[in-house]
Amino acid sequence: MKFDVYASMLYTANSPGTLILNIHALRTPNQTVVSEMFTLEPYIKAEELVSIHGENRLVRFEVANPGEISIVYTARIDNAYKLVELGDVPETPVHQLPTDVLTYLNPSRYCQSDKLFRLANNMFGNIENPFQKVSTLVDWIYNNVQYLSGSTNSQTSAFDTVTEQAGVCRDFAHLGIALCRALTIPARYFTGYAYKLFPADFHACFEAYIGGEWILFDATRLAPLNSMVKIATGRDAADAAIANIFGDISFNAMQVNCTLADENFVPFYYLPGGTQGISYL
Amino acid sequence: MKFDVYASMLYTANSPGTLILNIHALRTPNQTVVSEMFTLEPYIKAEELVSIHGENRLVRFEVANPGEISIVYTARIDNAYKLVELGDVPETPVHQLPTDVLTYLNPSRYCQSDKLFRLANNMFGNIENPFQKVSTLVDWIYNNVQYLSGSTNSQTSAFDTVTEQAGVCRDFAHLGIALCRALTIPARYFTGYAYKLFPADFHACFEAYIGGEWILFDATRLAPLNSMVKIATGRDAADAAIANIFGDISFNAMQVNCTLADENFVPFYYLPGGTQGISYL
Amino acid sequence: MKFDVYASMLYTANSPGTLILNIHALRTPNQTVVSEMFTLEPYIKAEELVSIHGENRLVRFEVANPGEISIVYTARIDNAYKLVELGDVPETPVHQLPTDVLTYLNPSRYCQSDKLFRLANNMFGNIENPFQKVSTLVDWIYNNVQYLSGSTNSQTSAFDTVTEQAGVCRDFAHLGIALCRALTIPARYFTGYAYKLFPADFHACFEAYIGGEWILFDATRLAPLNSMVKIATGRDAADAAIANIFGDISFNAMQVNCTLADENFVPFYYLPGGTQGISYL
Amino acid sequence: MKFDVYASMLYTANSPGTLILNIHALRTPNQTVVSEMFTLEPYIKAEELVSIHGENRLVRFEVANPGEISIVYTARIDNAYKLVELGDVPETPVHQLPTDVLTYLNPSRYCQSDKLFRLANNMFGNIENPFQKVSTLVDWIYNNVQYLSGSTNSQTSAFDTVTEQAGVCRDFAHLGIALCRALTIPARYFTGYAYKLFPADFHACFEAYIGGEWILFDATRLAPLNSMVKIATGRDAADAAIANIFGDISFNAMQVNCTLADENFVPFYYLPGGTQGISYL
Repeated sequence: MKFDVYASMLYTANSPGTLILNIHALRTPNQTVVSEMFTLEPYIKAEELVSIHGENRLVRFEVANPGEISIVYTARIDNAYKLVELGDVPETPVHQLPTDVLTYLNPSRYCQSDKLFRLANNMFGNIENPFQKVSTLVDWIYNNVQYLSGSTNSQTSAFDTVTEQAGVCRDFAHLGIALCRALTIPARYFTGYAYKLFPADFHACFEAYIGGEWILFDATRLAPLNSMVKIATGRDAADAAIANIFGDISFNAMQVNCTLADENFVPFYYLPGGTQGISYL
Repeated sequence: MKFDVYASMLYTANSPGTLILNIHALRTPNQTVVSEMFTLEPYIKAEELVSIHGENRLVRFEVANPGEISIVYTARIDNAYKLVELGDVPETPVHQLPTDVLTYLNPSRYCQSDKLFRLANNMFGNIENPFQKVSTLVDWIYNNVQYLSGSTNSQTSAFDTVTEQAGVCRDFAHLGIALCRALTIPARYFTGYAYKLFPADFHACFEAYIGGEWILFDATRLAPLNSMVKIATGRDAADAAIANIFGDISFNAMQVNCTLADENFVPFYYLPGGTQGISYL
Repeated sequence: MKFDVYASMLYTANSPGTLILNIHALRTPNQTVVSEMFTLEPYIKAEELVSIHGENRLVRFEVANPGEISIVYTARIDNAYKLVELGDVPETPVHQLPTDVLTYLNPSRYCQSDKLFRLANNMFGNIENPFQKVSTLVDWIYNNVQYLSGSTNSQTSAFDTVTEQAGVCRDFAHLGIALCRALTIPARYFTGYAYKLFPADFHACFEAYIGGEWILFDATRLAPLNSMVKIATGRDAADAAIANIFGDISFNAMQVNCTLADENFVPFYYLPGGTQGISYL
Repeated sequence: MKFDVYASMLYTANSPGTLILNIHALRTPNQTVVSEMFTLEPYIKAEELVSIHGENRLVRFEVANPGEISIVYTARIDNAYKLVELGDVPETPVHQLPTDVLTYLNPSRYCQSDKLFRLANNMFGNIENPFQKVSTLVDWIYNNVQYLSGSTNSQTSAFDTVTEQAGVCRDFAHLGIALCRALTIPARYFTGYAYKLFPADFHACFEAYIGGEWILFDATRLAPLNSMVKIATGRDAADAAIANIFGDISFNAMQVNCTLADENFVPFYYLPGGTQGISYL
């Protein structure tokens, strides 16, 4: 599937500092960056940071002079996902998990799975099939957590959201991740562009490791699961923030867009009783 | 019903300080203190503090000299409770609540009802009958929160317990109170002696204001509801702590007991589908 | 000193509900309500709730019909404060505190003094004179906590603010109260109208019990200490919220004003090294 | 310097499960594992997990049968540290930090540096030299946080400790890390064996990235800085827990020891005004 993605951001530097952006579409075996353009206005030399694990494509640049900075990123992306049949796939026992997956069982800044252990197991522990288990907890989030812009901030974590039950896509993702890890299912944060997301913005959802694959889940149901362009994965938003700002640089405005450059898009969502998961890689 | 209650406590004062104890059985229209004895060893002059609202009978004394302090309280109590038929009793609207009850709708130190608003209403908001509503949330606490000595401390609050789902009687009570208040049902902390409580200790449960009465609930199910001798009520354990210590005075040991001084005790617990609540006053 | 105070508030009721307002100037021996007017538009019968302790003058009314509600309160107040010489006044030991003051040593919803015990004593415990002690901690708050509108919400507590170091007047007051109680100095929340407060709004500060008097402190320094008209005191904002809303009623807008109806106002602030505190009663 | 390290641990498996241990001495250019022995009793096949970053040497094994498990690890280690002169070394600006170091600026489960930003900068932001800055904050932790066994648990984080000011080595380390990151100095958790640690146990301290080196700091002052055998580094204890337990396996007992296998050990601690940091690699 081909998508055209677009992001523009405006910052004002009040003092020298550094910006690290995480808005480039990832290059993976199944996601090709057909073309892309990244511009800074005024011109600043930017450096692309190569992640060892291929989890993201950070861009870092020093802001030496105060003033406005305009950032534009556009790209054409060709990606594919696969449908994975998970109806009969059992949970992977911890002693069989790949080494590099183990880290996604650990609690992290916004996903305190250690604190949600009893709750998660009381609520979902008796479901045997892992795809069913994660689907059920994702439905619970969708049904109980209110999508409410402005109700949370950059410090809000899954421990807050599980009780306060309001938030935005990032909070929905953190809660899903924390519940999965509390159930001994590895889970990681996924950030990307999403076609048909309304209102248009960067999107966040999460992947759970089931049957040897990273399966995508989105507790917000705000975009079809097959409409995503992956920017990054990580433990949580601390690893995959859209922007990390160092110094007195303030954010002014942002515009994000993701359009289809193909025909025949058929939106795909998980349906009750479904057994097929979506995996991007 | 007549009960003999007993409490002994040992402290070591390392420096001068003040102790405020909250272990005396309350005197109410339905609870008579037939006889009681309070001794401090070595002898210290103690002052009984008269609470304006009759919520407790604090005893305060200054510890002028370092050393061990032994406290013994014994009393014979004659009290009565009433059974209140609540099957058809609707919720009292806020504009009809007595002024002195309104305060029990507010969040307090250990009962952050403001943070549990969505959760409580998502889980229990659709139950119409208030006795049924509170009974259901109390059953939910009983079924989901693990009674686990040592799992919590004096700083643990309902906001913690609703997620961590482990605690002791005080935590069960705080969670019940917070959920009630989040559902606009006034609720307050109740501390007392409880016959048949095992292991013997001071007990904590809570009262909810339904049908113009303070109805007793105990999410631990550790003692019959009709086995209680009331020591105090308050917003939460911050108001009704067994002991408040000022200065470098350390707690060493405690023994608590409550025996029946009557015949024919028939334990009473709420049963599923029941419509009768217990009220002490 | 005579002040004219004014508050108007606009709500929209989306469903029936109840509003409890806490905006009336308190009547005390030193604060006379010369005249006042309270109007609801459309007309609703409102009930003034008499507080047993004289801590506030709540007004409660049922909103039976959806729609806009406009509230206007105006009053002329004549009040006086006294200056109390505290340079040689020692701390009141706990065993000498009046019974009704003891409650202001307890932790409360927004003032978790139990959690701030070591911090408070590490920072301020070595200061002997209590007025000096509280003045020093108030200066510390002023110097370290940034006044930042919108940085906190109705759930923010002293435990948050002591670390996050940003907030509004309510947060400044909560932190001051929590620190005092952790130092075994009774402290309570104070809400009122304040002349020369900019931008005009309801104000919050706090009182500490020193030398047998409730002495006023304001860590924001946003208004002169002698410019206050007391609305209420309480343990914290849970007791003294401007409005408690029950039901689906949303807040739209508010206007608050406090002007001088006298001549010769000389602003009074505590100065470094000062020994005189202000007490309203 | 040569050390003999020893760790024995006893677990009881109540059901099948998996254990992942993190007790092996790390192999680094400056730390040679001269000899080591790891035994499980009863015999279970264990797998050493190779960390991509060389941050740890995990051992994982499946516990198939209920019963007691006895673990013994002994090793002789030969390691070296270097003294780094940091008196004139300036802070590394973010745009010059190596890519793999950037992650140690992010907040993590136990080190919520995002919440400590104002506090850290208010307290230590005006110190220019980074070694001096970190030394000062480490001294502040030492002077204000009480080492108190049992005062915290596995969920305690830097956000708690900065206010509650009590904890164990792990809490001291987390607070140091969080403050560094809040000051834009990369910092990571360090766990190891420590000679002369009393009482003997695994130790935790932290490293800050200064002058292109990972410099060791220990806010507990419980062991000389040159007495360490590194087990692992990570973002915080979530990455470098001594043991991760999956399944119903309970911990019973542990013994840890670290003795000198060399002569002439001269304990090294940072002194006030010192400019030399210790770096292990």
